[in-house]
Amino acid sequence: MKSSQTRTGQVFLVGAGPGDPDLLTIKGMKCLQAADVVIYDRLANPELLRFAREDSEKICVGKKGGHYSFPQEGINTLMTTKAREGKIVVRLKGGDPFVFGRGGEEALALAEAGVPFEVVPGVSSAFAAPAAAGIPVTHRDLASSVAVLAGHQGSDSPQPIEWDRMARSADTLVILMPLGRLRQIVAALVLNGRGFDTPAAIIQSGTLSTQRHVIGTLRTIEAQASAARLSSPAVLVVGKVVNLATKLGRNRTGEEERVRDAVSAAG
Amino acid sequence: MKSSQTRTGQVFLVGAGPGDPDLLTIKGMKCLQAADVVIYDRLANPELLRFAREDSEKICVGKKGGHYSFPQEGINTLMTTKAREGKIVVRLKGGDPFVFGRGGEEALALAEAGVPFEVVPGVSSAFAAPAAAGIPVTHRDLASSVAVLAGHQGSDSPQPIEWDRMARSADTLVILMPLGRLRQIVAALVLNGRGFDTPAAIIQSGTLSTQRHVIGTLRTIEAQASAARLSSPAVLVVGKVVNLATKLGRNRTGEEERVRDAVSAAG
Repeated sequence: MKSSQTRTGQVFLVGAGPGDPDLLTIKGMKCLQAADVVIYDRLANPELLRFAREDSEKICVGKKGGHYSFPQEGINTLMTTKAREGKIVVRLKGGDPFVFGRGGEEALALAEAGVPFEVVPGVSSAFAAPAAAGIPVTHRDLASSVAVLAGHQGSDSPQPIEWDRMARSADTLVILMPLGRLRQIVAALVLNGRGFDTPAAIIQSGTLSTQRHVIGTLRTIEAQASAARLSSPAVLVVGKVVNLATKLGRNRTGEEERVRDAVSAAG
Repeated sequence: MKSSQTRTGQVFLVGAGPGDPDLLTIKGMKCLQAADVVIYDRLANPELLRFAREDSEKICVGKKGGHYSFPQEGINTLMTTKAREGKIVVRLKGGDPFVFGRGGEEALALAEAGVPFEVVPGVSSAFAAPAAAGIPVTHRDLASSVAVLAGHQGSDSPQPIEWDRMARSADTLVILMPLGRLRQIVAALVLNGRGFDTPAAIIQSGTLSTQRHVIGTLRTIEAQASAARLSSPAVLVVGKVVNLATKLGRNRTGEEERVRDAVSAAG
């Protein structure tokens, strides 16, 4: 496909999913195939770039530990400039573009610049990372609600987390990027009414082959994460559903590997 | 691919995504291609069945308005029986299999029956339906948390919603399947501290070409939904982020359609 250089292009804000490249959506893949320019985060799996044309321009605007190394303003300008050159721009963001990660701000910047854009949702790590450890975030008998928040938001954030109302809100809490402030998060949860014995899990690199996780309680989870030397990206899950991990967690058998190979071959 | 009839097969609990068939994951597509048997919900888009082999067995276990017309026990038995015949079974569920919809229960039944299974996450309607109406569920200045709950859970549910703690918990609330109890939900939210003027939106069939939505406040939303004759499946979104819909909502231009066609062609 050749892009026209005479008309405004379009930006697709594409969710790259939680890590496993096969968890990209079909639509996300088609957008990458059509892209003249791909602007990607560190949280988006770089393996996904194989879907893009060889002659497409690929620009990394890294993000690490919740902080952008490339200023947000610069990303917005880059997207706008490339689109105005008539190009199809894919902005590839880890997880879902509209669930944390400032995708809403990027969309607003595009809208204000008059650049056509479309959001292509992705599988959110908030749900997929727990699932990869055998934890459904809801369950008929254990959890009728789930809340998602970002752990790196300090008290200097424009919207600091009000732990007094969040701690005991939903039955299941999923806290993204918890490791930088894990001690404070656990303390805030316990001080605001979640018992020390509440089941808790931390999943690092959920859905990737490098996935590791620890399962315990609010009393033990910080020591476990530390002993296991868990690092970002990670999510913290709190609530009774965590107990299901022992029953539903991955326990590969040779038989399963056989079927897995068959599925891979079919793809 | 031929399945062996002499060994236990495997069940894949696959998230079909929010509606648009292109929002299925690549892994979900590969599972469908490998499947000997596909057991699907009404909430999963039947167009997805085109990925399955012609000679695969396709079984509809309908679900409508939050109620299964096929008993859950029967679905569990069906999955187990087919897997024990050595077959690769895909259980295709709307949205994400572990976010409401009883996927956790199905996984537990498989684990207890000793049937190998794997969960393949999907794009959840909880986030994708709002996004399709231009609403990011979080935004740095407007919402640092999002909670998801199911609206059809009555007081006779094993885990009824405790509105006193949920109503004012997360900045953004997403309520799945709200239409059957919309009046009670709005009343519960207002009685528990969400002001009548809180922005609210209902999105029907989010991400499908038949998508329709209304945007207003807790004061107006029930009348709007009624006037627009909205029907299930739908989601209710409550919180300041709803105001972004006017800026970020879809506003197709001819130019956008041109690029869309190019993207489709590339796929």
